[in-house]
Amino acid sequence: MKKLWQKDWELEKAVEIFETKGDIELDQKFAEFDVYCTLAHAKMLNKIGILADEELETAKKGLLEVLALNKAGNFKMEQGDEDIHTKIENFITERYGEVGKKIHTGRSRNDQVLTDLRLYTKSSMLQVWKEVISAAEAFNAFAKKNEFILMPGYTHMQKAMPSSVGMWASAFTEALLDDLAIIKASYANNNKSPLGSAAAYGVPLPIDREYTAKLLGFDAVQKNSLYSQNSRGKVESEVISALMPVFLDINRFASDVMIFTTSEYGFFDVDKKLCSGSSIMPQKKNVDIGELLRSKANLVLGYYVESVSLSSNLPSGYNRDVQDGKLPLFQTLELAVDTVRAAVVLLGSLKPNEERMKKAMTHEIFATHNALRMTLEGKPFRDAYKIAEKAAQTWIPDNIEKAVKSSVHTGGVGNLGIDSYAEQIKLEKKAFEKEYVSFSAAIKNLISG
Amino acid sequence: MKKLWQKDWELEKAVEIFETKGDIELDQKFAEFDVYCTLAHAKMLNKIGILADEELETAKKGLLEVLALNKAGNFKMEQGDEDIHTKIENFITERYGEVGKKIHTGRSRNDQVLTDLRLYTKSSMLQVWKEVISAAEAFNAFAKKNEFILMPGYTHMQKAMPSSVGMWASAFTEALLDDLAIIKASYANNNKSPLGSAAAYGVPLPIDREYTAKLLGFDAVQKNSLYSQNSRGKVESEVISALMPVFLDINRFASDVMIFTTSEYGFFDVDKKLCSGSSIMPQKKNVDIGELLRSKANLVLGYYVESVSLSSNLPSGYNRDVQDGKLPLFQTLELAVDTVRAAVVLLGSLKPNEERMKKAMTHEIFATHNALRMTLEGKPFRDAYKIAEKAAQTWIPDNIEKAVKSSVHTGGVGNLGIDSYAEQIKLEKKAFEKEYVSFSAAIKNLISG
Amino acid sequence: MKKLWQKDWELEKAVEIFETKGDIELDQKFAEFDVYCTLAHAKMLNKIGILADEELETAKKGLLEVLALNKAGNFKMEQGDEDIHTKIENFITERYGEVGKKIHTGRSRNDQVLTDLRLYTKSSMLQVWKEVISAAEAFNAFAKKNEFILMPGYTHMQKAMPSSVGMWASAFTEALLDDLAIIKASYANNNKSPLGSAAAYGVPLPIDREYTAKLLGFDAVQKNSLYSQNSRGKVESEVISALMPVFLDINRFASDVMIFTTSEYGFFDVDKKLCSGSSIMPQKKNVDIGELLRSKANLVLGYYVESVSLSSNLPSGYNRDVQDGKLPLFQTLELAVDTVRAAVVLLGSLKPNEERMKKAMTHEIFATHNALRMTLEGKPFRDAYKIAEKAAQTWIPDNIEKAVKSSVHTGGVGNLGIDSYAEQIKLEKKAFEKEYVSFSAAIKNLISG
Amino acid sequence: MKKLWQKDWELEKAVEIFETKGDIELDQKFAEFDVYCTLAHAKMLNKIGILADEELETAKKGLLEVLALNKAGNFKMEQGDEDIHTKIENFITERYGEVGKKIHTGRSRNDQVLTDLRLYTKSSMLQVWKEVISAAEAFNAFAKKNEFILMPGYTHMQKAMPSSVGMWASAFTEALLDDLAIIKASYANNNKSPLGSAAAYGVPLPIDREYTAKLLGFDAVQKNSLYSQNSRGKVESEVISALMPVFLDINRFASDVMIFTTSEYGFFDVDKKLCSGSSIMPQKKNVDIGELLRSKANLVLGYYVESVSLSSNLPSGYNRDVQDGKLPLFQTLELAVDTVRAAVVLLGSLKPNEERMKKAMTHEIFATHNALRMTLEGKPFRDAYKIAEKAAQTWIPDNIEKAVKSSVHTGGVGNLGIDSYAEQIKLEKKAFEKEYVSFSAAIKNLISG
Repeated sequence: MKKLWQKDWELEKAVEIFETKGDIELDQKFAEFDVYCTLAHAKMLNKIGILADEELETAKKGLLEVLALNKAGNFKMEQGDEDIHTKIENFITERYGEVGKKIHTGRSRNDQVLTDLRLYTKSSMLQVWKEVISAAEAFNAFAKKNEFILMPGYTHMQKAMPSSVGMWASAFTEALLDDLAIIKASYANNNKSPLGSAAAYGVPLPIDREYTAKLLGFDAVQKNSLYSQNSRGKVESEVISALMPVFLDINRFASDVMIFTTSEYGFFDVDKKLCSGSSIMPQKKNVDIGELLRSKANLVLGYYVESVSLSSNLPSGYNRDVQDGKLPLFQTLELAVDTVRAAVVLLGSLKPNEERMKKAMTHEIFATHNALRMTLEGKPFRDAYKIAEKAAQTWIPDNIEKAVKSSVHTGGVGNLGIDSYAEQIKLEKKAFEKEYVSFSAAIKNLISG
Repeated sequence: MKKLWQKDWELEKAVEIFETKGDIELDQKFAEFDVYCTLAHAKMLNKIGILADEELETAKKGLLEVLALNKAGNFKMEQGDEDIHTKIENFITERYGEVGKKIHTGRSRNDQVLTDLRLYTKSSMLQVWKEVISAAEAFNAFAKKNEFILMPGYTHMQKAMPSSVGMWASAFTEALLDDLAIIKASYANNNKSPLGSAAAYGVPLPIDREYTAKLLGFDAVQKNSLYSQNSRGKVESEVISALMPVFLDINRFASDVMIFTTSEYGFFDVDKKLCSGSSIMPQKKNVDIGELLRSKANLVLGYYVESVSLSSNLPSGYNRDVQDGKLPLFQTLELAVDTVRAAVVLLGSLKPNEERMKKAMTHEIFATHNALRMTLEGKPFRDAYKIAEKAAQTWIPDNIEKAVKSSVHTGGVGNLGIDSYAEQIKLEKKAFEKEYVSFSAAIKNLISG
Repeated sequence: MKKLWQKDWELEKAVEIFETKGDIELDQKFAEFDVYCTLAHAKMLNKIGILADEELETAKKGLLEVLALNKAGNFKMEQGDEDIHTKIENFITERYGEVGKKIHTGRSRNDQVLTDLRLYTKSSMLQVWKEVISAAEAFNAFAKKNEFILMPGYTHMQKAMPSSVGMWASAFTEALLDDLAIIKASYANNNKSPLGSAAAYGVPLPIDREYTAKLLGFDAVQKNSLYSQNSRGKVESEVISALMPVFLDINRFASDVMIFTTSEYGFFDVDKKLCSGSSIMPQKKNVDIGELLRSKANLVLGYYVESVSLSSNLPSGYNRDVQDGKLPLFQTLELAVDTVRAAVVLLGSLKPNEERMKKAMTHEIFATHNALRMTLEGKPFRDAYKIAEKAAQTWIPDNIEKAVKSSVHTGGVGNLGIDSYAEQIKLEKKAFEKEYVSFSAAIKNLISG
Repeated sequence: MKKLWQKDWELEKAVEIFETKGDIELDQKFAEFDVYCTLAHAKMLNKIGILADEELETAKKGLLEVLALNKAGNFKMEQGDEDIHTKIENFITERYGEVGKKIHTGRSRNDQVLTDLRLYTKSSMLQVWKEVISAAEAFNAFAKKNEFILMPGYTHMQKAMPSSVGMWASAFTEALLDDLAIIKASYANNNKSPLGSAAAYGVPLPIDREYTAKLLGFDAVQKNSLYSQNSRGKVESEVISALMPVFLDINRFASDVMIFTTSEYGFFDVDKKLCSGSSIMPQKKNVDIGELLRSKANLVLGYYVESVSLSSNLPSGYNRDVQDGKLPLFQTLELAVDTVRAAVVLLGSLKPNEERMKKAMTHEIFATHNALRMTLEGKPFRDAYKIAEKAAQTWIPDNIEKAVKSSVHTGGVGNLGIDSYAEQIKLEKKAFEKEYVSFSAAIKNLISG
């Protein structure tokens, strides 16, 4: 493919292949956003008098054709293409003439790819954001439904104190709600327009960066031109680490499911439609989905390491090393959506085995209840502790359920506040909707306006 | 040391050493916060009738003694101590009697250490927060002072377009201001009280978790008891990754300094008081501080990996693996303060070498200016680009400074908006002060109230 | 696709997609090796009387058809396929009848995929091994050719003492030769046959594991059946880390090239056929290949983290989490071959700029020569050091080349031992050839025997 | 402390603290090795005529005094010291006069610290090496003792096929023996002398590097002077990753112990002397040591990331960033010894609970035996598989022990080859002894010769 910078030589084939291998496919994901970015830029060039009205119309027509072709799967990146930006500019120039040679005025591929990246990330984070709220809702509904099914609670993998399915499940509700705070903060840092920072040093043209930012639905302009480029790599790694808490929560959930569905525990049954068998062992029914949910946090940890270590120890300004930071970001964002969804599927298939859990509530799990009971009667805790230790295999409350529910402080089995989570989820949905609608409206306006 | 759980056996010495090696020293940092945590808990026990007024007074006296001893360096963790919590409870019991056996009523070391960790983290993050604002201010002042000293801008480590010391330095101002958003989000997630979640399953006592949360200056209660424990590890890794952007910015700054102070570039001189010599080479004046600032982001990346991988693939509830997550968190927090401060020291010692920079502004760096000049006259950019390429070694603007300053869009050399950053810094200072004062007041009330 | 374990239910579609997404394509790489593995197993089943001679012949015919189809690109894994093992067994059963239902006797997919993985890794490591030797040879030839072109040597990025292009280039020769030792050790650990360990617990059949190991060209049997499975993940991470030194050497080389080709240093010119331009800046000639070589070590670091953290904190026996460890291994192995080759291309295009280097050999770089000269006359080094410091800007040897070459100890500029590396490279080639031929011969025998 | 490079300025206090914080303590570990390194260098200087015989004697006397002081704990690094090398040189000069000013002739701190690092690493790796052999021996003895205690084998954490305590334990024997191969390869790469490479560019003196290498017990000279410095960071990370397999094996062992000692499994009892209680729950007996063994692989993963990412993206020659690579290396080496030892302690305290294991050998675990039994009678495996599936809850072998032991192929329960491991351990001990004795002898000769 003809390069935008084509001079009196050709890039050596082997080098071109090495430099674009694996990256061309990733650029496909930018096609849609590159159209938006270029259209906003063209509108701005028109506003400041560089593109005439007719030129803008022509450019727009061409760009919308690219958008349509791409949607239909007919605008494919191929070996030999340098990147999506070049492919689109060449396409416009070949089919729509002179204006193609003008649309890059006042920008560089550096700020262009960065803008595409921000838009892609924003769009993907909105998906993750939505799925995380849905998952919080699913865990909360599960907690509500099974609130008072009692189960042993563990510390150090040993039986500790009585717990409940409600407590277990709503622990994940609260976890996911917490995660949203971090997601939103990194969403906001990504939601700034680098367009117009050019190669990193701006341009001697009266471009209007606030205007393009608004057209693209960004919340603000990323001001300093050099900082725009320096933030490449940093913002990506912020996004990856902002999703890590979600992966860790699901890792924890999956780890629990793997243990709680062993024949030794047997606390939950998983619908067999989610289970796999063995090629050699006839009796097998494995919860593979739990294992493959568990693994994902570990993958994302590697992606984060790639992202950060790629961009450390490098000087200011664009360094092409960061091209290799696209894949770990893309992997994280796609994995986040898939993983959260699959976790909800797994959760939906879990059936608490009440009998097994009840049977597992053996005497010693109530030893703390015994000790604390004595403290209410004035005995110092350390003394009560010793007495309860000796009675650990013999003492048990008369009414187990009543004893367990008597933890009525905030967050105790008897006072989980499941409905308060439901309220919080409603608010989170509203906040999400607002942002989602605002971004969609901006893009719609951009295309049709 | 007598364990709180002491039974009819002694923990094997070799095992005890393996389990506490390196950890005991870390617990020292908790001493102060464990006193606060225990005092708040005691006040609450008094409120709900478990501790009598006199008992609370006695406990308080003992705890304030620990605080004073610790401040004076006379409450030292030693080999053989199990942990700080045990040491303090034992101390109270030995010197102040029965009440020592009562203060652990209704809590576990699990929620206690978690509370200490949150308080320590909060206190440390406030320091980092403050230093980051100071650093943003220092970079902004440097940018203001040297705003229009021109220097080459680089991409791919090759000369690209004209830049300025103002642009270079204020890139870090904006970077650090962005970082504050992430820091504040993770600060907020850490700012919730786990106290009262006990071993992870609450207690059958009418404890008042909102009360202790308020006494300790927390913003909210971390509700679900199990989630409190499950968030151990997750919150730590959130904090570490929230500080990473700061380390990456300083890594970038240091990488620039290392290159810009080579004899080949010579753009900045570093005060020799910051330089080291060589044991063998008599002429050497090395900028070691730049190298040791650069290295830190890479260390913190490792700390993050420790923190995350420690807590993945584990089931719900307390697992002692997380004990090993204290060091990476502590290292990150202390390193953040030291590193930001040292970066400001380095910045303060930099003297721009105007002559060298001017000399480095060779013709080709203006080729884009030449091309864009033509686009203002109507020439399509791609055509102008080709003409400018041929003239790259010959064309230069008549008035270089005027040409460079003609980038007047937001974030261009001619419009860096340095004063707007100063405004933003003021707001950030106010937000910080508010939080700082509020936490300090809570602790002061707790002790003296 | 029909599962080998198909029972009275169907795996839910969404779950199947989540579990195989991205993995199916990877299994394609196993097709060839799965044929070898299955053929060896079939021969062994025949040897112990489970397969009749005709059955073995039929199975072989079917397997060779798969091999041919796959080579021609007509045996493609598709969405809906469970894995390559199932696809091949189903293929044989459908086209070649009963024997297809027998070939899995006495093995599990667990040992089968592990065997495929070992064979794929072995085959790929042989490629890397070969490329590393070639690269060592290329660096050595470059060093020989430019041995006495003098250049400054740097420490702390500041000029230190005189060096030479020969020293710089042969540093990479020795580095790569060192790396071979680690590669060979991990190659050997991978070169053991897990076939016959079945699901991890062996089988109650008189299978002959030594026989299949020999047929497949393995050096030994990995004995303990459980250990075979436990080594999954461990061996992969060993291989990844064994290649890291190569990536680090090339990272160092590329970092040097990026600095040495700046206009400020100008020590080397890179053939423009390896350079890229800019979309906005007409004058640009960037060494992108250097940046994309530099980035790779950082990617591989992430792959290692994935590989290790995936398999930690898990109990003995097969856990499906390890499926996600295939990609980081495959990425590392392919990247190793591509990266080493591209580094050699870059090296081949470098032209030392003798004039620039000579000019850079300024007085102070000889200060240590001055000091050490005095020590030969009996002056204590610390005293000589002080004198030389004062004379750093004025003293210079009469004959620079002679002075620099006077470092005649092992590894000094005057005694680099380039020919001794050439000798060592010859031996390495022989060792490689021996292993390569032995493996190829085994596979050839297996197919045609 | 007076710097070796002291000029007309003082290093700013704050900078000095930042640069040496945490590092000074690490240098203490070098004291012993720095004496060896310096003594060898002095002997060589004498050999080539730079030090007179009497001067060598004086230097030796001084160095042996340092050695003795250090052994007695009276040669302590303190805040304000630059590093151990400076401290020793200053000590000699102050107490033993002129010769102190001569001993640094022809070397730099760069090659000196590198040599110290290699010696320290070598000495520490020898300890790890020894412990790993001991651990292999302990696992093998445990396997031998409990060879035919049957237990269920698991895949996907579900019951799979019958296994044995012998199989489980000897899986770790073989694992650790495999690990030795990687350890030895990285030991060899570390076992080369960088002494004499000076700052990285050699010296114009006729130093004898082979002689010092021999005196210090190194196996070879690391030739290229620049490569010696470039290998800093690389060799450290090689060593860390070479120990990772050991940490992973112990992580696996500990993960198993944590599950197998739950009340739900109950396969092993741990001596209560290794268990800890809870501060709140009277009944608790936790296997904390298992958790703290499990965590270590995850820490070491972080250390590796630090080590690698510190030294990537940097140019050739010494960069002080690598100073920060000492701690992760030291942590890994010390942790390796402690962890392997503690694992052996835990193993030694495990008591198989034969009854519980036998009870857990439920019918379905023999389904594969049933299917394979039919294949011996000619039934195709896939058909037998279906029949066995239906009979999974009803069929069981008449003689369970005989059935399980009938896996007599290599590595099956009936043929674990425990004695063959014992043979291999003997050979490993011999290889270790040879290396250990050779190094000790060299150091002894150096000091007393």
